[in-house]
Amino acid sequence: MKFSEIVAALGDQVTASSLERGGKDLVVQGLAALEQANADQMSYVEGGKFASLVATTGAGALVLPTKAALQEAAIARNIAWVSVKNPRMVFSRAIALFYQPYRLPVGIHPTAVIDPNAQVGKEVAIGPNVVVSSGVKLGDRVCIHPNVVVYPDVMIGADTTLHANCTIHERAQIGSHCVIHSGAVIGAEGFGFVPTATGWEKMHQSGITVLEDRVEIGCNSAVDRPAVGETRVGQDTKIDNMVHIAHGCKIGQGVAMAAQVGMAGGVTIGNRVILAGQVGVANQAVVGDGAIASAKAGIHNNISAGETVSGMPAIPHNVYLRATVLFKKLPEMAKTIKAMQKQLSDGSGKE
Amino acid sequence: MKFSEIVAALGDQVTASSLERGGKDLVVQGLAALEQANADQMSYVEGGKFASLVATTGAGALVLPTKAALQEAAIARNIAWVSVKNPRMVFSRAIALFYQPYRLPVGIHPTAVIDPNAQVGKEVAIGPNVVVSSGVKLGDRVCIHPNVVVYPDVMIGADTTLHANCTIHERAQIGSHCVIHSGAVIGAEGFGFVPTATGWEKMHQSGITVLEDRVEIGCNSAVDRPAVGETRVGQDTKIDNMVHIAHGCKIGQGVAMAAQVGMAGGVTIGNRVILAGQVGVANQAVVGDGAIASAKAGIHNNISAGETVSGMPAIPHNVYLRATVLFKKLPEMAKTIKAMQKQLSDGSGKE
Amino acid sequence: MKFSEIVAALGDQVTASSLERGGKDLVVQGLAALEQANADQMSYVEGGKFASLVATTGAGALVLPTKAALQEAAIARNIAWVSVKNPRMVFSRAIALFYQPYRLPVGIHPTAVIDPNAQVGKEVAIGPNVVVSSGVKLGDRVCIHPNVVVYPDVMIGADTTLHANCTIHERAQIGSHCVIHSGAVIGAEGFGFVPTATGWEKMHQSGITVLEDRVEIGCNSAVDRPAVGETRVGQDTKIDNMVHIAHGCKIGQGVAMAAQVGMAGGVTIGNRVILAGQVGVANQAVVGDGAIASAKAGIHNNISAGETVSGMPAIPHNVYLRATVLFKKLPEMAKTIKAMQKQLSDGSGKE
Repeated sequence: MKFSEIVAALGDQVTASSLERGGKDLVVQGLAALEQANADQMSYVEGGKFASLVATTGAGALVLPTKAALQEAAIARNIAWVSVKNPRMVFSRAIALFYQPYRLPVGIHPTAVIDPNAQVGKEVAIGPNVVVSSGVKLGDRVCIHPNVVVYPDVMIGADTTLHANCTIHERAQIGSHCVIHSGAVIGAEGFGFVPTATGWEKMHQSGITVLEDRVEIGCNSAVDRPAVGETRVGQDTKIDNMVHIAHGCKIGQGVAMAAQVGMAGGVTIGNRVILAGQVGVANQAVVGDGAIASAKAGIHNNISAGETVSGMPAIPHNVYLRATVLFKKLPEMAKTIKAMQKQLSDGSGKE
Repeated sequence: MKFSEIVAALGDQVTASSLERGGKDLVVQGLAALEQANADQMSYVEGGKFASLVATTGAGALVLPTKAALQEAAIARNIAWVSVKNPRMVFSRAIALFYQPYRLPVGIHPTAVIDPNAQVGKEVAIGPNVVVSSGVKLGDRVCIHPNVVVYPDVMIGADTTLHANCTIHERAQIGSHCVIHSGAVIGAEGFGFVPTATGWEKMHQSGITVLEDRVEIGCNSAVDRPAVGETRVGQDTKIDNMVHIAHGCKIGQGVAMAAQVGMAGGVTIGNRVILAGQVGVANQAVVGDGAIASAKAGIHNNISAGETVSGMPAIPHNVYLRATVLFKKLPEMAKTIKAMQKQLSDGSGKE
Repeated sequence: MKFSEIVAALGDQVTASSLERGGKDLVVQGLAALEQANADQMSYVEGGKFASLVATTGAGALVLPTKAALQEAAIARNIAWVSVKNPRMVFSRAIALFYQPYRLPVGIHPTAVIDPNAQVGKEVAIGPNVVVSSGVKLGDRVCIHPNVVVYPDVMIGADTTLHANCTIHERAQIGSHCVIHSGAVIGAEGFGFVPTATGWEKMHQSGITVLEDRVEIGCNSAVDRPAVGETRVGQDTKIDNMVHIAHGCKIGQGVAMAAQVGMAGGVTIGNRVILAGQVGVANQAVVGDGAIASAKAGIHNNISAGETVSGMPAIPHNVYLRATVLFKKLPEMAKTIKAMQKQLSDGSGKE
């Protein structure tokens, strides 16, 4: 694909561009990360610490932010470039020009076991060994990769993809344009036990799990169903691998959760919240709209909308930063205190 | 179901009740959480911070603790109620009046691959694409959901359920009335490698994993087998999703582990221990009977019976609470120390 | 197997041995851990805190380090022994004398679905319900346990084993002599989304995941593929259960990662690094060769080669040890400071 064609395809995103490589219209063979790219590949720079890599990258073409310094650096190295407001987004769209994601062919594989009481939409793709139980409703163009199991009475909206070896439990409701990655488990029994004199008594989990439209659930993640009512994940929420969402959680819209995040029962997460990797949220905690939790934060109490928290237990991020710097200096601080104590008990109080 | 029938079904649990809703016997259509319940649903209150919700809930009926104030609050709002000692347990039992959990129909699906050298009990339910290998023994009424794989020489006790897409490795012994949730892996090779000059050498894991009766293992959890001997999970122990139990661990009876807990090799956990979410326990550590670890605790050393620990590294909970409050105040503390130092070096020793 | 035969089989590892049990050549029936072993079993002692167990073990034979005191202790208790430099390694090799790991029989099960455009090597073992898609290449002696799914265009080297219910995504390249454990997911789409005004926009993940030779990936772990380029795990690297390796990570050779470790996007891990359980590594961080991170460490910045770090955020281990001791003493420290303040403001400056 010629570089000029890529620039054209990006349309009104482009603020400026330069057809370098000796004035020739570079034929871009593919895309690559800045450090790995070679002369017939295009890469992108977002700025910040990566900006200096323009001086060393092997890339033949670059998507740049609208910054004269970076444009000049590219020209100096004879690199073709296009400037845009949001290089990451534009690079993302450029990938779509080169890459055709694998899609399971439309049709139902003869080894799939589809219950006669399941309702199947048009143009679905169902792979080998898929099991679709009684009462299930599959929307149009649903794509179910091999060895997926769908328990009874599940509803799956149009254009949703279930990847190999994932499991959807009874009565779960999954919206349209969702993606459930391999090994994920949706709507399994929540971890509900009542302590009694003779041990743990199971609390039946009669509720359901609901995923709204355009939700993604990562590999080997789980979204459990509750004793009563529902566990709900709001539309446009994206969840990474090995995330645990317990029974009765209510997750807002447009939320992003990185890998290995865990949520205890009955947690409420507002819209557009971002939880970094390995964050934990305790039972019944409420996290306000737009809040952010840093990696490994342990949220025990409610977090206000827009707040950024860090640490375990989670505290405001700026306090955390100052406190962790001092944590390292505790030995020094202890020594100072001891010296002052000595000074005071020496009765001197002076040098 | 009429409210009076529910009250009758709960039997000697009931200490008092009131048939409100204008004296009419409410027909309860279902159960719901306090905040979501509507006029033909029943909910429950345990007390504490939820007690005030009696004033606002839309529920038509409530399970209450034996507290006059709550009973009066319910009466004032024309809500039918029943008072019991343990509302959570009674609500749990009420769910069983309304909810019939899904059970795979008895029989062996024609697509299941059962080795002729496997022994299969009476009235088992085995779903599509299940694989049962040579030498496996399945007890009566065992239920195996679709796409489960059972490696050779596994024993599974009566009335145990294996959910879709879980895997049971060679020679594992699973008791009766156990539940293994989707994606869980029981008895896989422990992570045993010996460092040598040329890299990591595999230590064969010739041992077995044993789950005693009434054990539950959550979605995508793993209980590995050891080099020699056994990894054992005691009876009535309940384990949530994505929990890792390494080779050679010995877990007691009636233990509860929340999601994403991890245990290194050779750990010993006493009876009735509770480990909250994301707790980690280091190699060979011993946790005494009835001990409790708060979410995200990192246990490196032995914990005495009955102790409650928090933090990383885990320390007694009350010390942790005081120390974390002061952690936030480290910047302030550092400033105070500096001021005192100045005062002392000024030679004043006074204001 | 006679004890003398075991000693002979261990060859030049042996520095000394003693045929005790009353001078009779013990018939060793099996191997066991020190605490569980009985009179016809062999165990091993590495030294350290386990050394004292020689006085109490029920084992009939022991692998010992080359230490006179331990040899004498064994003789005093009439235990047969063999002394070697590395008891753990030798015990590991002794397991191989007794234990024949289960291997799926060679052949392709009739229920496996092998695409006609897949290339299959010699002497492969492919279990029931395995799905091998178009364009896949399987090396000789590859072993694929039941219900595994292999997406299109995957390459799998000779002698590699895929355990039941794992999933290999499109275009992944897996070396020879690798082991992928049950439920693991290799090469799934990385968690790549671009924030836009209307929500998260998917960044296609057009790259691939590469596992070099002799890599092991634990149960329910995931190694994602990136937007462009590759995610790579170096040869001889061993990864435990539920580990998350995000898109674009570059993991060195001979690395060991314990369970529940998580790595954000674009992380670089050097050769022979050891990450203990539940460690997290942030976006783009670089960990130098031979570095070690203790359990639950949170690595946000680059770590130099050979460094040992602990804590969250991760700091040098020795600093961490001193600081955590003082963390517990913060209440005491605060009290001391208060007392000094009072003393100073009293104007005394002395006792």
